[in-house]
Amino acid sequence: MTRHQILEQIRKKQSYLCIGLDTDITKIPHHLLTEQDPVFAFNKAIIDATRDLCVSYKINTAFYEAFGAKGWKSMEKTVRYIGDEHFKIADAKRGDIGNTSDRYAKAFFETLPFDAITVAPYMGEDSVKPFLQHKGKWAIVLGLTSNKGANDFELLHTGGEFFYEKVLETVSAWGTEDNLMFVIGATRAGEMSNARKLTPHHFYLVPGVGAQGGSLNDVSKEGMTKDCGLLVNASRAIIYASHHEDFAEKAREVAKEYQEEMSGYLT
Amino acid sequence: MTRHQILEQIRKKQSYLCIGLDTDITKIPHHLLTEQDPVFAFNKAIIDATRDLCVSYKINTAFYEAFGAKGWKSMEKTVRYIGDEHFKIADAKRGDIGNTSDRYAKAFFETLPFDAITVAPYMGEDSVKPFLQHKGKWAIVLGLTSNKGANDFELLHTGGEFFYEKVLETVSAWGTEDNLMFVIGATRAGEMSNARKLTPHHFYLVPGVGAQGGSLNDVSKEGMTKDCGLLVNASRAIIYASHHEDFAEKAREVAKEYQEEMSGYLT
Repeated sequence: MTRHQILEQIRKKQSYLCIGLDTDITKIPHHLLTEQDPVFAFNKAIIDATRDLCVSYKINTAFYEAFGAKGWKSMEKTVRYIGDEHFKIADAKRGDIGNTSDRYAKAFFETLPFDAITVAPYMGEDSVKPFLQHKGKWAIVLGLTSNKGANDFELLHTGGEFFYEKVLETVSAWGTEDNLMFVIGATRAGEMSNARKLTPHHFYLVPGVGAQGGSLNDVSKEGMTKDCGLLVNASRAIIYASHHEDFAEKAREVAKEYQEEMSGYLT
Repeated sequence: MTRHQILEQIRKKQSYLCIGLDTDITKIPHHLLTEQDPVFAFNKAIIDATRDLCVSYKINTAFYEAFGAKGWKSMEKTVRYIGDEHFKIADAKRGDIGNTSDRYAKAFFETLPFDAITVAPYMGEDSVKPFLQHKGKWAIVLGLTSNKGANDFELLHTGGEFFYEKVLETVSAWGTEDNLMFVIGATRAGEMSNARKLTPHHFYLVPGVGAQGGSLNDVSKEGMTKDCGLLVNASRAIIYASHHEDFAEKAREVAKEYQEEMSGYLT
């Protein structure tokens, strides 16, 4: 999916919402457990109920890998079910030496039809580059994450700047605004403006709104560019809005609230 | 597998060799392609031929994920086939917020019977901790890797030391010598002695010997502790020693050379 196509979706839906399918079989409504593939049945219902409200779905690979080959199969069915109108993110946090990252790119961009994958930058350029060499596909590199552990290294002082700032500066030279995004968490007020100084035009995938406590208002004020430049993710707040038979309907209600708030920031 | 059990295997086999199963279907001998699961057939033959010469096998998850659920199945068959006498490493470079790392730990330590997983440290403590909370299981955290990209961040100067040194110091406080190892590459002479000053007793998983050019002699001189403290990995140099019907036999010959050289350093 190209940048142009993402922008088109944002305009059309008046939304920059990404819905995170962190689907945990212990948290889905009981009546789905008799389905042949309960995880896929759950995802399908969530997707059907929210398709017109979001521009992206993010699949957290860990939740699928926890169930081995069967889980991987549920992931495959889910990403194929989403179709071509949404920006499909594999939230996989991969990254390894060149020949190995190249295999991960094949896994998510060729074997599976994802548009983007999240990538950990620790191992440097040759670990990121293979994800930037597939037409219409994106690497979303970790900048500043939304968790407490971000203090350990990402917010370490390294010669006058935070380490995550060094990462933004260095990594942004490896790709373009058409194949590279960054993860910038919503849980640290002020840092998003800071990140924008270093990467004024890149899209950010923003976790941390919802269950983790970040504010959509703050994120939108600090992070939005003239091209929007944001994909704001909510996972648990939407998909587990209800644990009963009305789960999809309730998910839609919460997604609709996000979309309406976003619509206000877009105009 | 406990530290004591690893040491027992090292003593018994006079080896600290880890064989990397980076099995690529385009590189395995042609006659195996008619097998129902060529990747597993290849791995099985390699394992049968080298079992007594190595203490560990390392499965590079990217090479299996590249084939989707089918690849995941080949990985599962392989790790189960290895059995309980070898230290089974998922070279997966995972790491995410706590609730997600927890799912990855379940994937590799419960659903699959791995003993260890490689972990990227970027996201900090809560991304690593879930891998340290399973009895007899290990997190192998990236310290200094063997690739060119290590120069980008790992070897960045951060207040008087390299960033990877800061990682060793910080991460070593999160676990013990009984549940935490580090990846220290073989391709940078001098740095292993340096790492040893910061983490004198931890086991190191050492990639970069063989196809990547690192020297077993240098690594053993610089990195060995009184408890050995090393698992030296070779992948391509062993598993692709021959591309013909004699591949397993040739793999054994190369593995035997490593084991004999290691035996000399152990005494």
